[in-house]
Amino acid sequence: VNDREMLERRDREDPLAAHRDRFLLADDLIYLDGNSLGPQLRGVHGRLTAASDAWRERLIRGWNDAGWVDLTDRIAARLAPLLGVTPAEVCVTDSTSVDLFQALVAARRLRPDRTTLLIEEGTFPTDRYVAGGVADLTGAEVKSVPRDRLAAAIDDTTAVVLASHVDYRTGHRHDGAAVTAAVHDGGALMVWDLAHSTGAVAVDLGRWRADFAVGCSYKYLNGGPGAPGYLVAAAHLDDPTPAIRGWFGHARTFDFAEDWDPAPGAARFRNGTPPVLSLTALEEALTVWEGVDPASVQAKAEALTNAFVALVDERCGEVEVVSPRDARRRGAQVSLRHPDAYAVMQALIARGVIGDHRPPDLLRFGFPPLTTRFVDVWHAVENFSEILATRAWDTPAFHRRNPVI
Amino acid sequence: VNDREMLERRDREDPLAAHRDRFLLADDLIYLDGNSLGPQLRGVHGRLTAASDAWRERLIRGWNDAGWVDLTDRIAARLAPLLGVTPAEVCVTDSTSVDLFQALVAARRLRPDRTTLLIEEGTFPTDRYVAGGVADLTGAEVKSVPRDRLAAAIDDTTAVVLASHVDYRTGHRHDGAAVTAAVHDGGALMVWDLAHSTGAVAVDLGRWRADFAVGCSYKYLNGGPGAPGYLVAAAHLDDPTPAIRGWFGHARTFDFAEDWDPAPGAARFRNGTPPVLSLTALEEALTVWEGVDPASVQAKAEALTNAFVALVDERCGEVEVVSPRDARRRGAQVSLRHPDAYAVMQALIARGVIGDHRPPDLLRFGFPPLTTRFVDVWHAVENFSEILATRAWDTPAFHRRNPVI
Repeated sequence: VNDREMLERRDREDPLAAHRDRFLLADDLIYLDGNSLGPQLRGVHGRLTAASDAWRERLIRGWNDAGWVDLTDRIAARLAPLLGVTPAEVCVTDSTSVDLFQALVAARRLRPDRTTLLIEEGTFPTDRYVAGGVADLTGAEVKSVPRDRLAAAIDDTTAVVLASHVDYRTGHRHDGAAVTAAVHDGGALMVWDLAHSTGAVAVDLGRWRADFAVGCSYKYLNGGPGAPGYLVAAAHLDDPTPAIRGWFGHARTFDFAEDWDPAPGAARFRNGTPPVLSLTALEEALTVWEGVDPASVQAKAEALTNAFVALVDERCGEVEVVSPRDARRRGAQVSLRHPDAYAVMQALIARGVIGDHRPPDLLRFGFPPLTTRFVDVWHAVENFSEILATRAWDTPAFHRRNPVI
Repeated sequence: VNDREMLERRDREDPLAAHRDRFLLADDLIYLDGNSLGPQLRGVHGRLTAASDAWRERLIRGWNDAGWVDLTDRIAARLAPLLGVTPAEVCVTDSTSVDLFQALVAARRLRPDRTTLLIEEGTFPTDRYVAGGVADLTGAEVKSVPRDRLAAAIDDTTAVVLASHVDYRTGHRHDGAAVTAAVHDGGALMVWDLAHSTGAVAVDLGRWRADFAVGCSYKYLNGGPGAPGYLVAAAHLDDPTPAIRGWFGHARTFDFAEDWDPAPGAARFRNGTPPVLSLTALEEALTVWEGVDPASVQAKAEALTNAFVALVDERCGEVEVVSPRDARRRGAQVSLRHPDAYAVMQALIARGVIGDHRPPDLLRFGFPPLTTRFVDVWHAVENFSEILATRAWDTPAFHRRNPVI
């Protein structure tokens, strides 16, 4: 049973509950969009202020004495345990789109005799667009198949398989180890998009034997709006070659050497001068994961989304649950279908329950395990069922389109 | 004559002098490294704080109501006049390295039958490395020639010419219009690297008829450590095709459309989610250029560097001036050669005169016209001549290598 009292009891018993206090989140806000933009950790504002102070006071000397020069390495060391890899396999740089381009080109080059990039139908736009660009540039073609037919679609033309571990719309979660093994059995390389996974569910790229992965740090990792992406290049790959070779990817950047000599490991993908302000916020945001067991994160994601699905079934029976009903096949999000999804979400936001909308007809609710309370599930469904029952969403104000959300 | 009194008078008569007050720069600091990391404008800290507040309080709604969604367009509008192009031709995104990769691939694609990328010997490492990566990827080869033989080296294999308008080491400045015309006469496309130009000297890409350009915003544009780069794709080019196609480069990002439909103009190069914190600092930093005439900036750059060269000649005769002696062929920097350049620069920095060092033997002094006082030139040479005369640089402390500067 998922009555309010029961959910409140689960919050009291939740071993991760204390982590919410490290974030600045209004108590009365039901924030179910941390899968789109994570909230701010308490320490972040002070760190940003300090970085701004260092720039102002130390100027160029900040590169020596304000810790800027090894910021990317420090962040890689914080991120690696969440990904199940070593720090040398992680590079925090650029946007996720650029990282994905780099990963796909590097993977494609390791399978020069094969000409297909296999992707998922309905995958995140950037993944589809970037794969198209890489195909054009490297003389390959993109083949799209439904998520559940990826393994079956691999043949001896398949160079690279790109898949979202958790789908951005449905929240469907792949079995990372099984898909990677199938891809390798077919002789292809595996590139994972972890944008909706890291910080939400357990990721273990080392155990999966993944080749490359990319992800996003402004969602479940709470790095702030437009925070950098990251790229994982597995240590078992011999010398992957970056398409983009910037000076910070050189083994000795400040030698200004004539020839390109890539830094060891994933650091070769660093490219340009690191974005110090954004990285500083991210470094601080990642401190919240110290001592957090990824298995407990995933268990809470499953419990939260189970409770939400059960309450929606019980109280909003007319709404279709689009996400998998088996929590082991789901990320930390649940999507519901409604023909007026946009307006319904606006009505929810007006009541302080913030999720988002994905065209044409999905309401998307994220349940980041470090910041979501079980009782938030109750309030979300309480408001949702009232809005549906009263058709409170059916006013012109809630149909008016905003620029983004 | 360039005695101290004369230089102080020039400061009093300098129409740009008041701009320095808009920056937070200690009065006793002689900061001649704004060509590496520009100082902080007074308003920046407050804007950064406000962006952090908006993230914390508005969360995902910040994309609607905190002005994040059109931040890149607003910055393009501020930057365009400094470049001599329209806002639609400018895209502020990613690092300069990534922007350069995008520009070179797009240019190469517009000359598919030609196979050489012509670059300058001794150009900035990223330019050389990125050109190498683009050549590998697009089946071209890189040919390097001395800066003064670029035009002569163009033949019917030349697809693209990449040149630094102002050289990062010597400060040599090309005639933008003449080089671009020679490149076009040879049937090739012109890509300018403006990292050491914009904000230092007059740039007029429209008049030059340049095809692409890239640049850096953390030097003379004062965007902060690791601030984003920018890319210019001239309107006269028909539909350049980005190699990297991220969702923010789509004409309708939030439609999550199946097919790639590039945004009009340079906005198609936007790629991933814009880095809001870094861009906010940059937007504020660019306000200082309102009403500033690029010709007056260049005139002051020429006057400052002329004064510096004359004083160095007069007081430090044993040191070689590596930069061109004709100010019309020079950026806002002067480089001097000394066998112990690193240690000499450390000795200068210890006295509060901050320039930088470029291996193996260059001392580099930048004179950003908005923040440099004529009297700074006096103090720099005064300290420099003393350090040389007393060999104050010749101690182990000044030979100890720092991570960066």
